Amino acid sequence: MTRFLILYNKPDDVHAFESHYNETHIPLAKKLPGLRRYTISRNVVAIPGGEPYYLVAELDWDDRAVLQRALQSPEGQATTQDLADHLARWSPGVRSMIYEVEDV
Amino acid sequence: MTRFLILYNKPDDVHAFESHYNETHIPLAKKLPGLRRYTISRNVVAIPGGEPYYLVAELDWDDRAVLQRALQSPEGQATTQDLADHLARWSPGVRSMIYEVEDV
Repeated sequence: MTRFLILYNKPDDVHAFESHYNETHIPLAKKLPGLRRYTISRNVVAIPGGEPYYLVAELDWDDRAVLQRALQSPEGQATTQDLADHLARWSPGVRSMIYEVEDV
Repeated sequence: MTRFLILYNKPDDVHAFESHYNETHIPLAKKLPGLRRYTISRNVVAIPGGEPYYLVAELDWDDRAVLQRALQSPEGQATTQDLADHLARWSPGVRSMIYEVEDV
């Protein structure tokens, strides 16, 4: 399984971020071709000494090839554009990465 | 499901970090009471503009109460102590957090 992980810092305008995320970004992302699972974090708390992210989003595909095709599709371009144009403005320093998930 | 997410920066000594993680930390963490799933990232790549973490570890429990009990158990204390005493020295700035996982 290949995962696209997105880590958002606390937005400067939580209400605007939440509204846009829930009403616009989730519906866009759920159209991504081949998407197997999409989860978000609720009630994030820090471990002592650690600084938590505000929101952890994980989108899973069967493998890297279908994920890459999804990101290059019109739906993928719309979703990443929405992140860059809106979500990343309220939440600067957003970090994202792709990796294979391996059980240990 | 309640998740414990740990994000490691690239270690200054990758070989020492990997050896300790695989040979000492994984066996310790796998003894945590109630642990349902433990995954790690392989082949992490950045999204353009983003800086990836070196290693993403996720440990899942049924709920927050059993996770809290696991962390307070002797096995939990040994695992977090190993992280602080060894892994965090090779990989400064490790970030960790706990949250509920919600499907969207």
